[in-house]
Amino acid sequence: MSQNLLAHINSPKDLRALDATQLEQLSKELREFIIDIVATKEGHLGASLGVVELTIALHYIFNTPEDTLVWDVGHQAYGHKILTGRRDVFGTNRLLNGISGFPKISESEYDNFGTGHSSTSISAVLGMAMAATLKGELEKHHIAVIGDASIASGMAFEGLNHAGVTNANMLVILNDNAIGIDPSVGALKEYLTKVKTHPKLAEHNIIKSLNFNYSGPIDGHNLPLLLKELTRLKHVKGPKFLHVITTKGKGLKQAEEDQVTYHAPGKFDKITGERIKKPSLEPTPPKYQDVFGHTIVELAKQNNKIVGITPAMPTGSSLKYMIEALPDRAFDVGIAEQHAVTLAAGMATQGMIAFCNIYSTFLQRAYDQVIHDVALQKLPVIFCLDRAGLVGRDGATHHGVFDIAYLKCIPNLIIFAPSNEVELRNIMYTAQLGLDNPIAIRYPRGTGVTINWKQPFKKITIGKAKEIKKGTIIAVLSIGTIAKNVSLALENISAPNKVSHYDMRFVKPLDEQLLHEIFKNHAAVITVEDGCITGGFGESVIAFANQHLYTQRIYPMGIPDSFVEHGNTNLLQEICKIDVSSIRTKIEELLTKL
Amino acid sequence: MSQNLLAHINSPKDLRALDATQLEQLSKELREFIIDIVATKEGHLGASLGVVELTIALHYIFNTPEDTLVWDVGHQAYGHKILTGRRDVFGTNRLLNGISGFPKISESEYDNFGTGHSSTSISAVLGMAMAATLKGELEKHHIAVIGDASIASGMAFEGLNHAGVTNANMLVILNDNAIGIDPSVGALKEYLTKVKTHPKLAEHNIIKSLNFNYSGPIDGHNLPLLLKELTRLKHVKGPKFLHVITTKGKGLKQAEEDQVTYHAPGKFDKITGERIKKPSLEPTPPKYQDVFGHTIVELAKQNNKIVGITPAMPTGSSLKYMIEALPDRAFDVGIAEQHAVTLAAGMATQGMIAFCNIYSTFLQRAYDQVIHDVALQKLPVIFCLDRAGLVGRDGATHHGVFDIAYLKCIPNLIIFAPSNEVELRNIMYTAQLGLDNPIAIRYPRGTGVTINWKQPFKKITIGKAKEIKKGTIIAVLSIGTIAKNVSLALENISAPNKVSHYDMRFVKPLDEQLLHEIFKNHAAVITVEDGCITGGFGESVIAFANQHLYTQRIYPMGIPDSFVEHGNTNLLQEICKIDVSSIRTKIEELLTKL
Repeated sequence: MSQNLLAHINSPKDLRALDATQLEQLSKELREFIIDIVATKEGHLGASLGVVELTIALHYIFNTPEDTLVWDVGHQAYGHKILTGRRDVFGTNRLLNGISGFPKISESEYDNFGTGHSSTSISAVLGMAMAATLKGELEKHHIAVIGDASIASGMAFEGLNHAGVTNANMLVILNDNAIGIDPSVGALKEYLTKVKTHPKLAEHNIIKSLNFNYSGPIDGHNLPLLLKELTRLKHVKGPKFLHVITTKGKGLKQAEEDQVTYHAPGKFDKITGERIKKPSLEPTPPKYQDVFGHTIVELAKQNNKIVGITPAMPTGSSLKYMIEALPDRAFDVGIAEQHAVTLAAGMATQGMIAFCNIYSTFLQRAYDQVIHDVALQKLPVIFCLDRAGLVGRDGATHHGVFDIAYLKCIPNLIIFAPSNEVELRNIMYTAQLGLDNPIAIRYPRGTGVTINWKQPFKKITIGKAKEIKKGTIIAVLSIGTIAKNVSLALENISAPNKVSHYDMRFVKPLDEQLLHEIFKNHAAVITVEDGCITGGFGESVIAFANQHLYTQRIYPMGIPDSFVEHGNTNLLQEICKIDVSSIRTKIEELLTKL
Repeated sequence: MSQNLLAHINSPKDLRALDATQLEQLSKELREFIIDIVATKEGHLGASLGVVELTIALHYIFNTPEDTLVWDVGHQAYGHKILTGRRDVFGTNRLLNGISGFPKISESEYDNFGTGHSSTSISAVLGMAMAATLKGELEKHHIAVIGDASIASGMAFEGLNHAGVTNANMLVILNDNAIGIDPSVGALKEYLTKVKTHPKLAEHNIIKSLNFNYSGPIDGHNLPLLLKELTRLKHVKGPKFLHVITTKGKGLKQAEEDQVTYHAPGKFDKITGERIKKPSLEPTPPKYQDVFGHTIVELAKQNNKIVGITPAMPTGSSLKYMIEALPDRAFDVGIAEQHAVTLAAGMATQGMIAFCNIYSTFLQRAYDQVIHDVALQKLPVIFCLDRAGLVGRDGATHHGVFDIAYLKCIPNLIIFAPSNEVELRNIMYTAQLGLDNPIAIRYPRGTGVTINWKQPFKKITIGKAKEIKKGTIIAVLSIGTIAKNVSLALENISAPNKVSHYDMRFVKPLDEQLLHEIFKNHAAVITVEDGCITGGFGESVIAFANQHLYTQRIYPMGIPDSFVEHGNTNLLQEICKIDVSSIRTKIEELLTKL
């Protein structure tokens, strides 16, 4: 097939100049283009393949960007990006200084609202539609495209519940493919599945009960049907809801058949669809995720009070290993972080030892529950905060850099960051022995540092830090896996015997005894963390020094007070100056002065 | 009527020893007891009056506390407290060292889960029920009582959505009185209202769609019916839902007729129901709430881009004045903080100036939305954080003491705390002129300090603090209305000319220029805030000093690292040592040393 249409689509205006009969051809080209690029550049594949026809139909029928269009989460917006002026830069997707993997207001006027976290689209679009009403722009359309996993999250319900009592001119399109990153769960999902096969249910359905004009379900890969239905809905006033059935990964056989893997498959052969695995010549350390996943299974087999909870990330968090091994005690609760935390709290009141695994950035969704339902009641829930720190190509919406700051002000909460796999295993072991307090354990995305990670468990004393290396003048205090960068920095400095390195382990409680020793024996202190400096671990050390009359200068290294964009983690570490070289430079600079 | 039954109910066991025919009499006594005490001791009246029969029926039919019972929010739990061993201490309700106004695990084994913030009960009870399943306690019952305002919040939906795919032995009781603190809103509420009068709707209803065994609606004041229905439900396995219709304030005429006022009416005549208003001999300063409420109306009349949003607190926040004056531009979105914030963000993308008024403690519910939907996109939403700082008798669940710490780590966000009413008005005026950034304005519950508060608007320069009083040795830096305590402390010190006082106004950005002057001209610095010390404003000042090589000791005064209980705010300030006397003592102590 010759790519002749897509090459001339530089904006939706070009798209709207096509004849409707040409759109099938365009959808083939668009699908091929996405596969071509993602096969080599990597990214989120399946979601965008599933909405190729819907994307074309929306831009064809509606007058974007004046009619606003918000893609919930945004994994599915690649086609949208390609059709809205970003075709030629699409190869820079998710790379440093390239386009973002998610819709982003600052990137294009067609990205009417930035997304990344789920279930925000209905609220945002309702806000736009209500603003249009107030401004007298009564002909403007406002569209949210939301998946069946995202619509089951509480925030989406709140948006629907409000929209249903307004006359806002908005259209919610449910992109129902029965899967988020992992297969969707929950009663609403079961219900939506029933609606597909029992059209009578559609007559009395939940959405209608919330005062939406409901239509569907219709086949989201049938372009003529989509065009017809969207045209009809253009003339329906008030809140409307279109239920569209799509297939995630549509058009690439493997992606359709293994939707979880092909959500973001890495590099693959664009013809055969086969994933291209990097040959591993030598054993590599495990991912922290797998250390968590295998360790919780190991512990749970010995301790029948242990349960595992994930809000919709069984694969990403590796809780899937426990779901497979001990299905009665491991729960995927869907995109429902608030519920996940309070569910864990409820279990903890009954003596269960609940490991609640949530990505650091998504725990922001359950902040109140951590304070009000867990910490206030001193329930010993064990939070495993996956993807803490910089996460790389997912970018600003997903970096887990605020957790230390937003958690350390919470009374009763222990905060621990393992510096390596063995520490992660040992703190998990320690926590399930029974703590008097809740604990948050933060660890990063990706591989660790220890080949031989599966060592016998050792109990960790709460509040005890570790000396890694003793020196005489400068003390470097690191928290978490950024210890690795410090160790590497120290391998090549001019006066190694002058520099100490401590793995502080606990953000809270601080090891005050060790801190006293450190301040008594060093002329300067550097703190290093992969979290924000403002309100972070370093500031706790500064506050400690102030309280105890130490007057040494403390140099906090961490994420500066601005949002960090997308790109490979090592490049982002350089930008934030917490890479090996920046740490070394800071140490050398101090060695010169002191 | 003689109070003979209630006096002998020291626990639900005594209740269960009664004959069912005696329960009507008990309900009369319980209702009278609540009215008697709350009439003089104050508290939340209406909600508890509405569930007298339900409370008795639940403890009569179920084997509490082994069968677990969670009261959502907890305003309605007075009857529960009185029947579960707290009758004789009920007069200490909400007082320092007295019983809490909310259920609290540490207070009674019958309080199976602490509440205060809404919509947590379904998740907590599901956790308990799932734990029981794992422990083989298959005969245990688990009950959540939730109001129609609370069930419309996203978190409750998340709980229902999960529960519906479990076989958990739980019962959700919808206490449907069509009102939260203010009348309930939203599409679900409209639907539930329709269900009451169209029993056929109950056949295909939303709750059934989520796989619950639904029954009702039934009259929640009909004791025999309640007993019968609860007995029947005891034998139904899996997730069950009982829709109960009640009248808030039931049994006190005024409370039934003016449900908003009698939610928490203050003192009233227990016979006539008339509220007892304190005679005011002289003009008093306004409540900060009313300054907000009247000022937004004043500004909105001049600036048609202004909109107001409250999640279910039109009366509490005084946004009701705008809802009355400009109903098209002021919105009560229900208990939906997440939605409220992102709705405001959506409006802001279209050039609207959105004032989003949320209690400090409830903004914890929308933390992710503040970061991800507002600050990351640099949308100039104006957050008005009501009830920041200590809130008094509502206690630990409601103090707004974490906001500075959890907000200051967010890039792009301005944080301001007015020291008085005029400052609140002027920052609102300044914000609606158009800022490049979002702003959080935090102010406390209750009355201010200025009789003549309605002064002409003046623009405030972002990041500019104010010198209140110039001295020579000690600088006191306060943020927000706690400035009043500092001023009072300074009225009576031994060496007034040695002490400066600065109203710092902005937590972020800090007035660095002034801070440099302060540190250059003083030997010691005290910071005072009504927020947590850990991660708070004082620590920002300490970090500034460290960064700029100032070595003066800084003394941060604020809320210590533990949850603060309930009691009058002035008593709580003493406990936290931010009262006038503690501040004066600290200053005198330093004056002696320096």
